[in-house]
Amino acid sequence: MSDNKKVNFPVTTQAGDWVANLDADDIPARAYDFARHAILDCIGCAIAGQGEPAMEIMREEFAGNASAGASTLIASGRSTSLHNAALINGTAAHALDYDDVHFRLHGHPTTCIAPATLALGEFLGASGRDILTAFIIGTEVGCALGEMCDDGHYEAGFHATGTMGTFGAAAACARLMGLDGAATTHALSIAASQASGLKVNFGTMTKPYHAGKAAMNGLMAARLAARGFTASDRSIEGPQGFAQAQVPSFKAGPIRRDDTSAYAVEEMLYKYHAACYLTHSTLNAIQALRKKHEFSLDDVEVATLKVRSTHTSVCCIAQPASGLEIKFSIQHLAAMALDGVDTGSLGTYCTRNAIDEHYIKARDRVVLDLSENMARTAAIVTLKLTDGRVLSSEADVGMPESDADLQWKRLTGKFDALVIPVLGSRKTAELIALVETLDNVSDIAVLMKEAG
Amino acid sequence: MSDNKKVNFPVTTQAGDWVANLDADDIPARAYDFARHAILDCIGCAIAGQGEPAMEIMREEFAGNASAGASTLIASGRSTSLHNAALINGTAAHALDYDDVHFRLHGHPTTCIAPATLALGEFLGASGRDILTAFIIGTEVGCALGEMCDDGHYEAGFHATGTMGTFGAAAACARLMGLDGAATTHALSIAASQASGLKVNFGTMTKPYHAGKAAMNGLMAARLAARGFTASDRSIEGPQGFAQAQVPSFKAGPIRRDDTSAYAVEEMLYKYHAACYLTHSTLNAIQALRKKHEFSLDDVEVATLKVRSTHTSVCCIAQPASGLEIKFSIQHLAAMALDGVDTGSLGTYCTRNAIDEHYIKARDRVVLDLSENMARTAAIVTLKLTDGRVLSSEADVGMPESDADLQWKRLTGKFDALVIPVLGSRKTAELIALVETLDNVSDIAVLMKEAG
Repeated sequence: MSDNKKVNFPVTTQAGDWVANLDADDIPARAYDFARHAILDCIGCAIAGQGEPAMEIMREEFAGNASAGASTLIASGRSTSLHNAALINGTAAHALDYDDVHFRLHGHPTTCIAPATLALGEFLGASGRDILTAFIIGTEVGCALGEMCDDGHYEAGFHATGTMGTFGAAAACARLMGLDGAATTHALSIAASQASGLKVNFGTMTKPYHAGKAAMNGLMAARLAARGFTASDRSIEGPQGFAQAQVPSFKAGPIRRDDTSAYAVEEMLYKYHAACYLTHSTLNAIQALRKKHEFSLDDVEVATLKVRSTHTSVCCIAQPASGLEIKFSIQHLAAMALDGVDTGSLGTYCTRNAIDEHYIKARDRVVLDLSENMARTAAIVTLKLTDGRVLSSEADVGMPESDADLQWKRLTGKFDALVIPVLGSRKTAELIALVETLDNVSDIAVLMKEAG
Repeated sequence: MSDNKKVNFPVTTQAGDWVANLDADDIPARAYDFARHAILDCIGCAIAGQGEPAMEIMREEFAGNASAGASTLIASGRSTSLHNAALINGTAAHALDYDDVHFRLHGHPTTCIAPATLALGEFLGASGRDILTAFIIGTEVGCALGEMCDDGHYEAGFHATGTMGTFGAAAACARLMGLDGAATTHALSIAASQASGLKVNFGTMTKPYHAGKAAMNGLMAARLAARGFTASDRSIEGPQGFAQAQVPSFKAGPIRRDDTSAYAVEEMLYKYHAACYLTHSTLNAIQALRKKHEFSLDDVEVATLKVRSTHTSVCCIAQPASGLEIKFSIQHLAAMALDGVDTGSLGTYCTRNAIDEHYIKARDRVVLDLSENMARTAAIVTLKLTDGRVLSSEADVGMPESDADLQWKRLTGKFDALVIPVLGSRKTAELIALVETLDNVSDIAVLMKEAG
C-alpha cells in the first residue's frame, strides 16, 4: 500500500477531461499508422488464440446458445452479448501470449483495449477512424497510468495488463461514446474498482482471462458511466483509492506531459517469439549465435543467461509441465532455441516439448546469472562448448521499431502465419486489406464480420 | 503489499478441500436456521433495492431485451443470463446499504454470496437444502479469509465486501456444483484474480456494484473451474498472490480452526437503520436518550459522538449532498436522529433531507470525539443541552443476536416493511413462508419465481 497517502494532482479528473476533449485532428498521422499495426496484430492473435483449450471453455460458458447476441466473436462463427464479446475476444487475443507489449504499461495494452473498443464499435456502428482514435486515447491512458505506477505495482504481484488494461479500455470506450469529462472521470473510477489480476496465476488459463476481464470491465465501466452511474471523482489518486491500495509508490501526473512526445501506440513492442516477452532477448541472442557459429545443443556444456534478477518472478518456471508453462520458462526455452527449434511457431509450445527428456537434461545445463543492473529487455548469452570454445552474444528487445513500413511488413508476415491456417488465404488477405485502410472503413462491423 | 512474502500454510488448497469435502450433516441445525435469516434479509433488501436509481441503470445495461435469459431478476418481472442475474441481484441487495454485516469479513457477506448461489441454484434446479449448505460454506470461507486479512486490507482502501465476497461466492458456487477439492482450489484462484473494490467509491452507485461484481465474478470463477479452466494452486498465499499484493499483514490458517465454534452465519449482524453499520451504535444511543429524556433537536447545544477514529475514512462525509451520502455521514444522521427522524425508513435517505437547512445547521453542532480505543461497533453519545443538562448514553452493535426466534421475528418485520410496498402483502407472506421452510423446497426456482 502506498506511502503517498496524499496525492495532490487530480489524476482522475484530468485524465477524464483529456480523454473527452482531445481533438482527434491533433493526433499525428503516424500514431494512426501504428494504431493499425496494433489492431492487426491483436486480431491475428485472437484468431489463432481461439484454438486454445481455454477458449473452448470461455465460449461454452459465455457464448452458449442461451446467450447469443449481436456482437461478433472473432474466428468462431458465433455471436454473443456486447460484454461477453469483449471478454471472449480479449481473452483470445492474449491466450497465446503472443500479443504486443508496452513497458510503460508494464504489460499488454492492445489485448484489453482493442477488443473492448471493437465490440462497442460494432454495437454502435462506429467508423474505423473513430475506433482508431478511441484506441490511441485508451492506450495513452493505460500506458501513462502504468508509468505513474512505476515498477512497484507489478512487482507487488499485480498483473498490470489486467489493472492498467481496465483503465485503458474504459477510456477508449468512453471516448468512442463521446462522453464528457465528468462522465469519463466516472468511467475511470468504476474501472478503478474493478482493476485486478495477480501474477500468481501466470502460466495458467487465468492469465489471458485477466486481459478479457479488463476488456469487459472497462467496457462495463464506460457503459454504466454513460447511463449516469455515479462514482468518485478521484478514485485513482484519492484517499482509499487505487494508488493508495494497490501502488507502493505512485507518481501522479497528467496523461501527456507534453504535446510533442510520441504517442504510446508508437512505442508498442511486438512479439515474434510466441513466449513471454522477457525471454525474447535471450532467444534472439541464441539465434544470432547459431547463425554465426557451428554447434549443436549437445555441444553446449553450460549456457549462461545474464538477465535481470526480477525475471525469476515472471518467466523462470524451473520444471514446465505444459506448453503454456514453457512460455514462462526461460531455461527450457533456451534449451529448445539452442536445438534450433522455431520459437515463433505456435506448435512449439506443447506438452510433448515440455516433457521431452532431451530438453529437460539440456535445461539443467542452463544457468541464470541474475543481475539487478540488466535492463529487463536485455540478455547476454554465453555458451561454454565441450570443445573449449566460449561464445557470447547480447540482445535487447526494448526499443520500439521506428520504421512503420518495416514493422507493417513483419506484422503482416506474422498475421499470415497465424491466420491462414485458421481462415485461409483469401480471408486473411481481405482482413489485412481492411485494417490497412481502416481509416476509410465507415462501419467497423464490416471488419468484425470478416473476422467472425 | 504484505511483509509476509512467504506464507507456508497452504491456504488455497486447504480451503478448496474443506469446501469440497465438508459433510453437510456435520453442520448444526442452528447454522441452517441462521442461514435462512440471511437469505430472507438479502431477498428483502434486493426487492426494495431494485427501486434505486442505480438499479434502473443496471437493468437497462445488463438485462435489456437483447440479453434475456433463464435467470430471474428479483422484483423486476424480467430474466437475464445466469451471470448478469448474479450481478444485478447482488447489486440490488446492497443498493440500500441495508443488508447484513460480518465483522470477520469486514463487510457484507450475503449480498455477494446469496445472489450468486440463488442464480446458480435456479439454473441447476437445486434444492433449498443444497442452497443453504452452499451458502453456509461460502460465508464461512469469506469470513475466515476476511479474518486472515485482519484490519489492514480494509484500512488500505479495499472494500472487503468486494474482495472477500468474490471468494465467498466462488466457494458457494463450487460447492453447489459439487466440484472436487482441486477444482474448488482453482475456483478460489480465479476468484483471487478478480478480487477488487475500492472504498474511495463509497457514497456512490459504485459501492453496491462491488457486491454485484463479487457475486458475478465468484460465480464465473466457479463455473470456469467446473469446466476445467486452470489457475494456480496457491493464489491466496503464494508469491505474487492475493495476500502479498493486497494484504499488509496476512495471518494464514485453515477455514475453521476447530469443529465446535459457531459458524459465521450465526454471527451475522443485521441492520435496522438503513445506513452504514458503523453509525448504528450512535443512532441506537440517540434513540435511547430520546426515549428516556424530553428534549428537541433545537435544545441540543453540542452533541458529542465518541467513536473509533477509523470511522473518518468510512462514514463521516462532512457535507452529504444526496440520500446515499447521508448513509455515510454520521454527523448528518445524528442531527436527524436527534430530531426523531425514523432512520429505519428508506424514505429518510433523500436529497431533500441532505440539503435541509435545519439539519445542516444542526450537524455543525455535532462534534466527533475520535478515539483509537473505541470498538468499531460502539459509540458514546453525550448531549449538552441549552438548559444546562448533560445527557449521555452508550451503545454497542457488535454482538450478534443469539436468540434465533427473536431475530427471525425482527427480520420478518423488516422484510414486511421493505417488501409489502413493492410486492403487496400476499406475495410478501408467501416469500416469508417459502424461506421459513427452505430446507423442504425441492427446487429453488419456486422461490426465485415468487421473488421475480
